[in-house]
Amino acid sequence: MKQLSYIFLCLLFGSLNPIEADAQVQEEFIWTKIKPTEVNGRLADKDIDGFNRLPLALKSEVREPVWRLSQHSAGLYLLFTTDAEKIRVEYKVKGNKSMPHMPATGVSGVDLYALDGPSEWRWIRGDFRFQDTISYNYSGISKRSSERVYYLYLPLYTKVEWLKIGVPKNNNLEIKRENKTKQKPLVVYGTSIAQGACASRPGMAWTNILSRNLARPIVNLGFSGNGLLEEPILDYFTKYDAEAIILDCMPNFTRDDMGPEQARKRLREAITLIRSKHKKTPMLLVQHGGYSDGALQQDRNQLYTSLNKVVTDVYHEMIENGVQHIYMLTKEEIGLGVDAFVDGTHPNDHGMIQYARAYEKFLKEQQLIE
Amino acid sequence: MKQLSYIFLCLLFGSLNPIEADAQVQEEFIWTKIKPTEVNGRLADKDIDGFNRLPLALKSEVREPVWRLSQHSAGLYLLFTTDAEKIRVEYKVKGNKSMPHMPATGVSGVDLYALDGPSEWRWIRGDFRFQDTISYNYSGISKRSSERVYYLYLPLYTKVEWLKIGVPKNNNLEIKRENKTKQKPLVVYGTSIAQGACASRPGMAWTNILSRNLARPIVNLGFSGNGLLEEPILDYFTKYDAEAIILDCMPNFTRDDMGPEQARKRLREAITLIRSKHKKTPMLLVQHGGYSDGALQQDRNQLYTSLNKVVTDVYHEMIENGVQHIYMLTKEEIGLGVDAFVDGTHPNDHGMIQYARAYEKFLKEQQLIE
Repeated sequence: MKQLSYIFLCLLFGSLNPIEADAQVQEEFIWTKIKPTEVNGRLADKDIDGFNRLPLALKSEVREPVWRLSQHSAGLYLLFTTDAEKIRVEYKVKGNKSMPHMPATGVSGVDLYALDGPSEWRWIRGDFRFQDTISYNYSGISKRSSERVYYLYLPLYTKVEWLKIGVPKNNNLEIKRENKTKQKPLVVYGTSIAQGACASRPGMAWTNILSRNLARPIVNLGFSGNGLLEEPILDYFTKYDAEAIILDCMPNFTRDDMGPEQARKRLREAITLIRSKHKKTPMLLVQHGGYSDGALQQDRNQLYTSLNKVVTDVYHEMIENGVQHIYMLTKEEIGLGVDAFVDGTHPNDHGMIQYARAYEKFLKEQQLIE
Repeated sequence: MKQLSYIFLCLLFGSLNPIEADAQVQEEFIWTKIKPTEVNGRLADKDIDGFNRLPLALKSEVREPVWRLSQHSAGLYLLFTTDAEKIRVEYKVKGNKSMPHMPATGVSGVDLYALDGPSEWRWIRGDFRFQDTISYNYSGISKRSSERVYYLYLPLYTKVEWLKIGVPKNNNLEIKRENKTKQKPLVVYGTSIAQGACASRPGMAWTNILSRNLARPIVNLGFSGNGLLEEPILDYFTKYDAEAIILDCMPNFTRDDMGPEQARKRLREAITLIRSKHKKTPMLLVQHGGYSDGALQQDRNQLYTSLNKVVTDVYHEMIENGVQHIYMLTKEEIGLGVDAFVDGTHPNDHGMIQYARAYEKFLKEQQLIE
């Protein structure tokens, strides 16, 4: 991607402050290189290479695109505490930094939030530079009596090679890890939408919004174009405890090599496999959320309508067969409107908020989470 | 910008259809090159070069950045009718096709809507290719008994050099122009936010959303970083009739060379100038919408708080001085939340919808539009 220079951005928007940035350069920062084992948001803790989402043991088990996409850090995040008023993040990624319908801030950017109270999420503005090394400079963060807890969401659509966090030399920085024994995660197996396309920044992926709104961990197993209810992935995540398991794979069954009958077969098999290992974990089948062009482009309407019939059929079939703790979130409940998408297939930030709200409402109303 | 190939996008998302695209190549399309005089969404009809927003006579009157930004086609749109099930758009732009925090689809993309009833807006999905010539292919559009009216929004942050629309040779295409005598436009003088940063596609700029929701024309005079209540721009648009005049320039007075006192002086002068030419046209002063980082980054909070005091002061001062038909839209009424921005300064699509809704509610409640 041809990069706009910082100066050009300053001229264009008149809202950045090059003078302050220059002053910062003079200050001495202490840098902490993040160990991949310090990452949160994934199930396996061992046998993982870097900021990948799947363990190395799965490399020979999954198809090549799934492995490649598992190297994207969607849903992963760092936790740290600091008393610093300035925080810097520098890192390097492998892969395209942006896509035509998703900006660099979403594809390869990071996103910083602080938690100031039980549900008081604060977003922190950073000046970003997308060069060979990507940098985010956060400044002017107000002091608090106690050190603040920060969540740094990692890029949604690219592989992070290394990452370091810097604070001024007189401040503390402590990398934390989420207490996994304290709370079981929601596990989401899905598509590009679940992976985070096309959020404008990582914090706007619906899984990350939902995680904040519910104040609980979510594991993102969204694989763009490749959320196909496959056995190696099902085998993998069913080894772990979960608060609930969410199967949101329908949008990928529109592929020419898939279709409604493959969806029916695989959905049945996935439910059976999951139930064989998770006797009581709530399992949520999610319909295709629809396309914003369905009203006029009717072949697109047919794609999701036929798949959603499959989800409804399988859901009722399972209930009749005595499967318990199984639920269905419908297209209508997701409720995406004509302006919820960027390209007709992938939600924009407005659609991402709608997805997260629909999940939150459903999970709470059905009492699927404690 | 390094471009992702179409094939790569197909692999990545599994949602495009290369076979259909190949089949389309075989079909004969008739192309209509758009004359710049066929564009809608601007005040002047003559003395305009290409798809610019300001007439050539203003080139020597405005500062260079304003003239450069006026060449961006924000808020401009083409109207056409066709019975085609396939529509293609090809065009060339000058300038960066994307920005780090705004995707190519927003910066240099086009956006197609149809109007199926008084307020039944349909969005049309297109396959896009951002190459030297940018192309959007729309297909599978359902037939209707009468020809459909289409709105094609032009790019928000780049200059269009030429543009052509193609339909299959057996279909009709008629370029229309909006009937300017039928309805006066809302005129919006503003900043990068008004220009459309950082909507994911042109139709999501708040002026374009509002224009659809109110079913009336809006003239976009948003100049990124340069919405500074300047005389040449005020002189220009006050020559024309308007349903209402909206001054939404405060976010640019955060510039180091501006600040609250410049804002106060210029706001007073602008109101006086406008009232000297428009005795009764409703005039809406808009507060700074705030930043999503205001809670923790307090220097940023101070920026908009001090500017919003200026707007409030000037508003009350004008009322006391007997100025009539003057209104104020507050930060609270705009109501942007922590997740309404991409970079803390520019709304994402969620923020754009919030902006448009706030304006719509205010304009209707205050009965400022017929």
